[in-house]
Amino acid sequence: MDDDSPQARWERHTEVPLGLCSLLFLTAYAVLVLGHGLPPAARDACLAALLAAWGLFLVDYGVRWRLSGQGPRFVPAHWLDTLVLVLPLLRPLRVVKVYEAVQRRRGRPRLALYARVAFYAGLSVLLLGFAGALAVYQQEHSAPHATIRTFGDSVWWTCSTLAAVGYGDVVPVTRLGRTIAVGLMACGLALLGAVTGSFSSWLLHVFAREGDERPPGF
Amino acid sequence: MDDDSPQARWERHTEVPLGLCSLLFLTAYAVLVLGHGLPPAARDACLAALLAAWGLFLVDYGVRWRLSGQGPRFVPAHWLDTLVLVLPLLRPLRVVKVYEAVQRRRGRPRLALYARVAFYAGLSVLLLGFAGALAVYQQEHSAPHATIRTFGDSVWWTCSTLAAVGYGDVVPVTRLGRTIAVGLMACGLALLGAVTGSFSSWLLHVFAREGDERPPGF
Amino acid sequence: MDDDSPQARWERHTEVPLGLCSLLFLTAYAVLVLGHGLPPAARDACLAALLAAWGLFLVDYGVRWRLSGQGPRFVPAHWLDTLVLVLPLLRPLRVVKVYEAVQRRRGRPRLALYARVAFYAGLSVLLLGFAGALAVYQQEHSAPHATIRTFGDSVWWTCSTLAAVGYGDVVPVTRLGRTIAVGLMACGLALLGAVTGSFSSWLLHVFAREGDERPPGF
Amino acid sequence: MDDDSPQARWERHTEVPLGLCSLLFLTAYAVLVLGHGLPPAARDACLAALLAAWGLFLVDYGVRWRLSGQGPRFVPAHWLDTLVLVLPLLRPLRVVKVYEAVQRRRGRPRLALYARVAFYAGLSVLLLGFAGALAVYQQEHSAPHATIRTFGDSVWWTCSTLAAVGYGDVVPVTRLGRTIAVGLMACGLALLGAVTGSFSSWLLHVFAREGDERPPGF
Repeated sequence: MDDDSPQARWERHTEVPLGLCSLLFLTAYAVLVLGHGLPPAARDACLAALLAAWGLFLVDYGVRWRLSGQGPRFVPAHWLDTLVLVLPLLRPLRVVKVYEAVQRRRGRPRLALYARVAFYAGLSVLLLGFAGALAVYQQEHSAPHATIRTFGDSVWWTCSTLAAVGYGDVVPVTRLGRTIAVGLMACGLALLGAVTGSFSSWLLHVFAREGDERPPGF
Repeated sequence: MDDDSPQARWERHTEVPLGLCSLLFLTAYAVLVLGHGLPPAARDACLAALLAAWGLFLVDYGVRWRLSGQGPRFVPAHWLDTLVLVLPLLRPLRVVKVYEAVQRRRGRPRLALYARVAFYAGLSVLLLGFAGALAVYQQEHSAPHATIRTFGDSVWWTCSTLAAVGYGDVVPVTRLGRTIAVGLMACGLALLGAVTGSFSSWLLHVFAREGDERPPGF
Repeated sequence: MDDDSPQARWERHTEVPLGLCSLLFLTAYAVLVLGHGLPPAARDACLAALLAAWGLFLVDYGVRWRLSGQGPRFVPAHWLDTLVLVLPLLRPLRVVKVYEAVQRRRGRPRLALYARVAFYAGLSVLLLGFAGALAVYQQEHSAPHATIRTFGDSVWWTCSTLAAVGYGDVVPVTRLGRTIAVGLMACGLALLGAVTGSFSSWLLHVFAREGDERPPGF
Repeated sequence: MDDDSPQARWERHTEVPLGLCSLLFLTAYAVLVLGHGLPPAARDACLAALLAAWGLFLVDYGVRWRLSGQGPRFVPAHWLDTLVLVLPLLRPLRVVKVYEAVQRRRGRPRLALYARVAFYAGLSVLLLGFAGALAVYQQEHSAPHATIRTFGDSVWWTCSTLAAVGYGDVVPVTRLGRTIAVGLMACGLALLGAVTGSFSSWLLHVFAREGDERPPGF
């Protein structure tokens, strides 16, 4: 990453623009899904922004493929990038990388390690949860027998899913809605793992330090 | 913290009064929310206690801001204090600090490290859960189509949320009730992390000690 | 524990009888709760066994109090024993101690450390879950609007609670049933912590060993 | 395992065939459960494949019992193998071993330790979840008052159970369906433990390395 190969330079220069691009994509998608009463011109503008952002993602993927010189082996080796290209709602995760890039430019990171893990996990869950709530709302709100009818219902359902609580008062009923839901459950599991793992390792760290400072008879 | 700066001295002297103040705030709030048949005079007294406690929190925040000499950078640097000032129901968490202060005065802490983590996590969850159950009950009990109708329902719902079980037989239906619910879910995640992390690090500690004491062939 | 004080000798000699006594208590309670069509004489015998077991627990508590020579400080110092005396359904947990005692007599424990933690956690959860399912069934099965009507429902609900899943298709509706449910949720949290903590420390152990054995470049 | 005893050689040679056999068993079971409109001949072929695979498992168990020379002590010592023989839907877990065997033949494993744990946990959960969804669907889809009516419902229910979310919109109602459900909940607990434990130990690993590389004042 720190070397001066063409790939590294490309990634360094496209990081911030592509991150902004992801936010643009998410915003345009949100306006399209939530803006029921918008004039057609505004909807067309949003659709254009959506497609333009997607086009840029495609160009970036192509350039990185070409620069890598890996040929057909590039697709399985970068399966996460390929997935994100096909499902660009997962793109906002790149914001995490942008934040890192901005921090790196200003010098050394100012956040301690545990705070960084908590910050990244929180930001990723926030963005993924927002994208998931939008997508589930789009699939569900007009389905027959749907219980998720407003965007508020969808956000409430997303929170209860990410926290692994799962009340079940509102649930997706369509096939695509449930597929997105399974993805959100996986995020919830990862979030639980991140919270628990951070706490566990922080406790071990504290206990190790206290054990050094205090007399052994404590 | 152990130095003799004005801030440290202020915090040392206000710790116990502010902790009692938080308990007073929570008690007055509970009486206001649950005491439907109280005479108006008693309700006014509770409201007065509530406002007086809030005023003291404001004074404490102002004094600490002034003493810090940080100017406008104080608010983001102490965002947790700012949040607790705006949502004083989170205040009882200060009881944790009061307990620490009382312990420190009587000499060295008598609880071992793991017991302290368990004790603080339990106390925080108990106080936050009680405040959350009160707030959700206040929002929900008179809403149309509400399923949380009595304070017992609210406590039952709070417990199932904090344990990440989430039966869904009673759930908040109002916008504000659901917002408080999301906060309680986050507490539940943190509780799960605390329980798991403590157990994990305790096991590692025990195993490391057993590994030292026993022959390596065990 | 290994010394020869009167308390240690008393505990060593009463461990196995009191463990069998706990199993007798649980069995008699189960027969009383589930045996709707038993003849009165059989029910009276079960009740007598229940009371006799409880009496023995009381005698044991009294003897240990006397032997400790601690006076009134004994009750808070042994709060867990006091709780178990008041709620003897938690007694079967002593079986864990009995197993340990039996193992110790036959020589050194034959189970490795991780297996022992898993075994104790599993046995405790099994016994507590059975006792909880019995108690919830007793409270709920004849309550109005109850959803837990058969013992099978109660076992199903207990499993979904202990695993923190919480479907909510059957839930306790009485005040006492919900109180027992909160206790079971706490057991579920502890179980989750035990499973996660064991796995986490086992992984760390394996990784540390692999790290030693393999070349650092792996 | 690495020695040249007859058992080790038998296991080495039967690993891949038995793994393929497990996949055949699962496929035949899936076709039988899901293929409602198949011609009788095709159903008979599937049934034959099912029984043939089961017979091979029995032969393998018998040969390993004979080779071990342990007599009746073999059954409790290999209780997991015995369980898998009785419930062959748990068999696909052997695929994990097949993967290991294939990797070993090609030389040293190419996946790092954390990736291997994640890969095995993911593969096991996928196969067990598929088998569980099939079995629950078979038990439930024609039961009176069933809420799991299609295979899609069953998969959706399985995912919400494995992630410990438990919406409760569709739940098993038959005795056997609920028993399978309890097994899936245990898998969910183990999955949660695996995810959390991996993350926790990975964090500790990273923090330990960062602690070595950076100046202590960081």
